[in-house]
Amino acid sequence: MARIGIVGGTGYTGVELLRLLALHDDVEVVAITSRAEAGRRVDELFPNLRGRYDLAFSEPDVALLAGCDLVFFATPHNVAMNLVPELLQAGTRVVDLSADYRIRDAALWSRWYGEPHASPQLLPEVVYGLPERFRAEIAGARLVACPGCYPTAIQLGFIPLLEAGLVDPAHLIASAASGASGAGRQAKIDNLLSEVSGSFKAYGVSGHRHLPEIEQGLAEVQGGPVSLTFVPHLLPMVRGIHATLFARLSGEADLPALQALFEERYRDEPFVDVLPVGMYPQTRTVKGANQCQISLALPQERDTVVVMSTIDNLVKGASGQAVQNMNIMLGLPEQRGLTQVGLLP
Amino acid sequence: MARIGIVGGTGYTGVELLRLLALHDDVEVVAITSRAEAGRRVDELFPNLRGRYDLAFSEPDVALLAGCDLVFFATPHNVAMNLVPELLQAGTRVVDLSADYRIRDAALWSRWYGEPHASPQLLPEVVYGLPERFRAEIAGARLVACPGCYPTAIQLGFIPLLEAGLVDPAHLIASAASGASGAGRQAKIDNLLSEVSGSFKAYGVSGHRHLPEIEQGLAEVQGGPVSLTFVPHLLPMVRGIHATLFARLSGEADLPALQALFEERYRDEPFVDVLPVGMYPQTRTVKGANQCQISLALPQERDTVVVMSTIDNLVKGASGQAVQNMNIMLGLPEQRGLTQVGLLP
Amino acid sequence: MARIGIVGGTGYTGVELLRLLALHDDVEVVAITSRAEAGRRVDELFPNLRGRYDLAFSEPDVALLAGCDLVFFATPHNVAMNLVPELLQAGTRVVDLSADYRIRDAALWSRWYGEPHASPQLLPEVVYGLPERFRAEIAGARLVACPGCYPTAIQLGFIPLLEAGLVDPAHLIASAASGASGAGRQAKIDNLLSEVSGSFKAYGVSGHRHLPEIEQGLAEVQGGPVSLTFVPHLLPMVRGIHATLFARLSGEADLPALQALFEERYRDEPFVDVLPVGMYPQTRTVKGANQCQISLALPQERDTVVVMSTIDNLVKGASGQAVQNMNIMLGLPEQRGLTQVGLLP
Amino acid sequence: MARIGIVGGTGYTGVELLRLLALHDDVEVVAITSRAEAGRRVDELFPNLRGRYDLAFSEPDVALLAGCDLVFFATPHNVAMNLVPELLQAGTRVVDLSADYRIRDAALWSRWYGEPHASPQLLPEVVYGLPERFRAEIAGARLVACPGCYPTAIQLGFIPLLEAGLVDPAHLIASAASGASGAGRQAKIDNLLSEVSGSFKAYGVSGHRHLPEIEQGLAEVQGGPVSLTFVPHLLPMVRGIHATLFARLSGEADLPALQALFEERYRDEPFVDVLPVGMYPQTRTVKGANQCQISLALPQERDTVVVMSTIDNLVKGASGQAVQNMNIMLGLPEQRGLTQVGLLP
Repeated sequence: MARIGIVGGTGYTGVELLRLLALHDDVEVVAITSRAEAGRRVDELFPNLRGRYDLAFSEPDVALLAGCDLVFFATPHNVAMNLVPELLQAGTRVVDLSADYRIRDAALWSRWYGEPHASPQLLPEVVYGLPERFRAEIAGARLVACPGCYPTAIQLGFIPLLEAGLVDPAHLIASAASGASGAGRQAKIDNLLSEVSGSFKAYGVSGHRHLPEIEQGLAEVQGGPVSLTFVPHLLPMVRGIHATLFARLSGEADLPALQALFEERYRDEPFVDVLPVGMYPQTRTVKGANQCQISLALPQERDTVVVMSTIDNLVKGASGQAVQNMNIMLGLPEQRGLTQVGLLP
Repeated sequence: MARIGIVGGTGYTGVELLRLLALHDDVEVVAITSRAEAGRRVDELFPNLRGRYDLAFSEPDVALLAGCDLVFFATPHNVAMNLVPELLQAGTRVVDLSADYRIRDAALWSRWYGEPHASPQLLPEVVYGLPERFRAEIAGARLVACPGCYPTAIQLGFIPLLEAGLVDPAHLIASAASGASGAGRQAKIDNLLSEVSGSFKAYGVSGHRHLPEIEQGLAEVQGGPVSLTFVPHLLPMVRGIHATLFARLSGEADLPALQALFEERYRDEPFVDVLPVGMYPQTRTVKGANQCQISLALPQERDTVVVMSTIDNLVKGASGQAVQNMNIMLGLPEQRGLTQVGLLP
Repeated sequence: MARIGIVGGTGYTGVELLRLLALHDDVEVVAITSRAEAGRRVDELFPNLRGRYDLAFSEPDVALLAGCDLVFFATPHNVAMNLVPELLQAGTRVVDLSADYRIRDAALWSRWYGEPHASPQLLPEVVYGLPERFRAEIAGARLVACPGCYPTAIQLGFIPLLEAGLVDPAHLIASAASGASGAGRQAKIDNLLSEVSGSFKAYGVSGHRHLPEIEQGLAEVQGGPVSLTFVPHLLPMVRGIHATLFARLSGEADLPALQALFEERYRDEPFVDVLPVGMYPQTRTVKGANQCQISLALPQERDTVVVMSTIDNLVKGASGQAVQNMNIMLGLPEQRGLTQVGLLP
Repeated sequence: MARIGIVGGTGYTGVELLRLLALHDDVEVVAITSRAEAGRRVDELFPNLRGRYDLAFSEPDVALLAGCDLVFFATPHNVAMNLVPELLQAGTRVVDLSADYRIRDAALWSRWYGEPHASPQLLPEVVYGLPERFRAEIAGARLVACPGCYPTAIQLGFIPLLEAGLVDPAHLIASAASGASGAGRQAKIDNLLSEVSGSFKAYGVSGHRHLPEIEQGLAEVQGGPVSLTFVPHLLPMVRGIHATLFARLSGEADLPALQALFEERYRDEPFVDVLPVGMYPQTRTVKGANQCQISLALPQERDTVVVMSTIDNLVKGASGQAVQNMNIMLGLPEQRGLTQVGLLP
């Protein structure tokens, strides 16, 4: 049994980690921290966990966390980058669900997050935790930066096209939409039910923090610069991301060929499911499941390919992918604890 | 591995049975029937099941079903009562999720369902599948009638009070609310998102078909007649039932005593959770889980006790409870395949 | 043109007042205050008002407000009771949408709100702004306390029964549900979409602040003490209150007689609509409209009468009723500016 | 008072016409037809209309309709094109909300709708009812084809760019999303709350019937062929369309210039509102209002311009626009009866 710690357990990715790990046979959560809720039982804050954990939130104490084999950071940005150096030194491995280590270039990170990076010396060894790209590197990593939710859905949708060199990398478009849980469990007027329910809007259009992360990942795949126009939208619902991707074909390709390309690329991936032609993904189909469902279309047989990619932002977009990374790091079967079926309806 | 059949697999209780049984180690679904969808792959209709079943819907053929150890009926009323006699004769055990066998009195059944009962000869041997009341009888039953969703939530809330003889049985009140999935996967204008979303209403106020079932169950507990005013409401959401129960105390009782009574009654029940005083249940906490959460209040310390009882109508209110019954009937651990944690948020 | 001021215009009752008054021909909003948003254009915060008002929020300045003929307080409690005395002295009339003047007994108010009342000397002259009870008094009032949302729906449902002396006043029950806008435009985790959407729960069961207000009103109707068990619930939607009321008939009464009683009581009320027997109200039917729709049932012809009463909590439950009061106070036709049709679907 | 008829009054555009016309001073609805509901009172089906109309549905009788000055068709396609010739002959003018007369080319219409057009001889005189393009022609028209909901939002967003010749017309992209009321009041499983709520998906990706209508309109503006990749999505909510449009700038243009272009184009349009830079539209802001709100962005100052355009699909996307057309045809002030403020929250 691996000993697991969670830093910042009061947000949605925290409770989702606990939900998934409650049914994982090979690990035990021994510590979960929260400054604000220290001393309070976890199942008092999250009653869905009653009977699953006999655990209270504790202060974020490095000694406690250093006793873990692996620690998840389920914190806002700017927490992990301050604590991780000590943990690594103590021999504890880290899966960071925050944005702190996702950007390889510290200067670029600073530009988007408005502050200096606290541990840039670690950036060279960080492994980007997208198993469909970096499975081998994740296995041996000390520090894994778990991808953001939009970046997961969008990269998985573009990767086969870019790997095959089929599309114009200078004019990629992603029109994506997320449920409100993506904004976290924070007391903000903008996220009230009365503000979000029964409505739909774009946000962050001029520049969203996930843009440099996505472009960094896609550029590595392309082997050269890419330019993405990324418009995120807020959905009047809790969970789910749907990315609708547009790319212009640079050569000849028909839909059957594109479909075959995607099926081949993800044939052995346990958590990426390429749907048959004509079946489009719905976010509800992957609700609660560590799954990305992808579908392709070539409307009117013209030259613009459309890729639809859906995930549960809290599972394959965050905590499920984090557990997937943990499984790989610990040498466990990758699907251990991640067999939940999507909750439909 | 027990061989399992499902009759009527295209509704919400059908897909929910498949979701739960996909992760159940001791049973195998070998047949799932649907006249309308015969020949179509199950995971084409319900893409959340992709990769879980290599199964297509088949015509409802008795020979096929008779080869099963146990068959679930996930059908509207008026199907099971015609097919079950043959199946029992063939040695197949049955868990009926429909209303056909819930009422012990055939004449009463006919009054509420507007037609004669097709197999009244079986009624004497039917066991009512509420394990918290009839666990021992379920174990040996050939035919179990799975309770309705409202009846499950409401009976579990009233049972301790009636068993203790604490309340006036002639004036029980249940104000309950259900998500729209309780109305099934049927093409009716009344259940369109555009009709239900952003709105709330009562329905069936003059008489809902679950009323005689609930009164039958409560009268057996009370050991005498009970009278219930039952008002169901339709919630603008998919899953969940919340029952708010009101009863007048016939003697002295304070909240701590009532709380102790409920905690004692359900101490050993794996799927009934009495919340601490002051914590009220939310339907989301049990979403996707086979769980009933119950809370008590005695507003202003007056003489009316309020019980709040929540379930997921498709799990503890239908398919989860059906699997629980199956486990008991097959001599399996009662929690096998039912360990899902509620999906919060 | 009457000159109108609004104190506290950044909440939902504030923007709703502006929505209604934008189409009111006989009044002009000349001042709207907000400490937090002073200087900001109203239509920047609420873009639905673009093109309707050329107005910015201003600091809550008494001199400014004193120049108005009538001022609405759309504030949390504890604001109006400090400012109103000065305004009345200046000859400005007041409609207070907050709770400050709803309870006639200052000691009782203090018990529920946890602080002393700041202007108890005004309580004797306050008129409770339920036109269906106090139309004549409202006309001449200087200070009208607009009823709460639950109190409006619940009192309108019980009044005919109590006036006729038909029910046991000692055991009234109200199981009511409200959309999340009832909790206001405040940054609280409990009101996030991710917390409320797709879920349903009771709250304030042991004692909600609307209880003393409702009991005060019903006791006046009854001419003696009443006891109400009041359980509010939170709906996963924005607007709407649905109250389901239960009362035990103390004498003989059948449904047609009860129906006739209600129709007679509200025959001349422009904003109370008694639905035909068998038609139950839906909150969406009155969405955006200053309307209360009421329906009656006598389930199974037993002795418990059920009344269903729905309003839009922001209109007949707050700002619409406030405008109705204003119309009466200013001698305008009561329906002026209140002719909106419910937004269905 | 103009005499108005409505054919097909039981759908959402029908009830919405009635909601709007209830407050319109210059017209009177004298006939509303429905084969299925003939004889039933309108306010029984739509209780939000209680007290507004003393009207029952009647059989679709030509003589009755021919007695009207103007008739709205709020029917599915394939009804208007059969009845309109007779009405025009009788001197009745027509605003058709269905798709029958939107496509100028009968052969193209047949390709998308799978049947021959029943009155192609009328196509040359049809005026496309987008007042922002054809106000003068509408004034004198006998037969106006009201634009579809997506076509309204998308065309209003692209028109200024195409008129100015600023973008590549061969690679326009529209990623749009609609509330479920866009699918109409029809009993289909796909539109059940349990299917749509809490989920998001694309549909009609390979080819949606609104595509030829939009391309026809944009090509006329461009004065040459355009090619649009159009992906509609289904939102888990009732009302609202949000179109996110992408176009590649063919020359130099910065955001202030684009903003000025849009503001200038729509300066005198009463129902098109160009938001200030940085304020993005939300569907809720125009809920219930005959309004299109538009916003522009030039993400990262690259060469792809993003336009966001929102309407209420039942108002500016259907019945509100139909009333706007009616006003123009009847020589009434264009805003008569269309002054509703968006219902926020």
